[in-house]
Amino acid sequence: MGRVLADQILFAQRGSSAEVEEGRAFAPKFDADGLLTCVATDAGSGEVLMVAHMNAQALANTIATGEAWYFSRSRQSLWRKGETSGHVQRVVEMRVDCDQDAVWIKVEQAGPGACHTGRRSCFYRAVPVGEGAKTSVRLEFRDAEKAFDPHDVYGGGTKPEG
Amino acid sequence: MGRVLADQILFAQRGSSAEVEEGRAFAPKFDADGLLTCVATDAGSGEVLMVAHMNAQALANTIATGEAWYFSRSRQSLWRKGETSGHVQRVVEMRVDCDQDAVWIKVEQAGPGACHTGRRSCFYRAVPVGEGAKTSVRLEFRDAEKAFDPHDVYGGGTKPEG
Repeated sequence: MGRVLADQILFAQRGSSAEVEEGRAFAPKFDADGLLTCVATDAGSGEVLMVAHMNAQALANTIATGEAWYFSRSRQSLWRKGETSGHVQRVVEMRVDCDQDAVWIKVEQAGPGACHTGRRSCFYRAVPVGEGAKTSVRLEFRDAEKAFDPHDVYGGGTKPEG
Repeated sequence: MGRVLADQILFAQRGSSAEVEEGRAFAPKFDADGLLTCVATDAGSGEVLMVAHMNAQALANTIATGEAWYFSRSRQSLWRKGETSGHVQRVVEMRVDCDQDAVWIKVEQAGPGACHTGRRSCFYRAVPVGEGAKTSVRLEFRDAEKAFDPHDVYGGGTKPEG
């Protein structure tokens, strides 16, 4: 392989704001729970597929393997995207934001969708805003057709991922 | 105006997973700090501009006004995007994800950029992954040209937003 292993990957210590924002050292800022936010978009369409979290191990695994790993807050465990469904995400590019507390990955999504509900994206409902806002907010389904049957992919039982 | 006021907006109580995921009630899941994650993308290009947080007030303000409001974790205060810079974000569409702990807003970004460092997007550095991964991660500047001079817009002193 010749690839770097996840356990060999080193993150830098946090420096000054100038160093964090204008430097080339990767010094991710994990929150009190040891997590940073990750946004995954479809590398082709640009659509936001999901928002999830990574701990240091998930981040290192993603960098080393080029496939998305996350940390499930609900299950408190490391999670390779697609480990149950086969719907892995190949990372085409990873970006980090100015203060390095969020990453954006552009991915090639394997299979029909990213969402455990069977949709392509987790963001299949709109919230009316501005002129369309209502006192009692009602969501509007949008791009919400099911791309696959989650029972076929995940089986019954509890939510497998996320 | 005839518009709904932010203080009139009602969020629903959290129901079962089926209700949260497949229903039309908007029951945002705020974390232990009272925040949910917001991803802002450029409505035209699809580029991720920034990732920030909203508390209930920021979310209600955004829905009522159609302009992005956030909650600054560092300053612990409500923040109307563009209040200092003039770089407001008009929300073209708001989406919520399956478990309703994240929103995605597609925005028309006023002014040259969203990032307090002077870039169009906060995500102006890439992290090499997969075959390009290195043990000691070095960031690569990408789409990192300054769109404006932050000193001209924000003045000196501390980071004004975020």
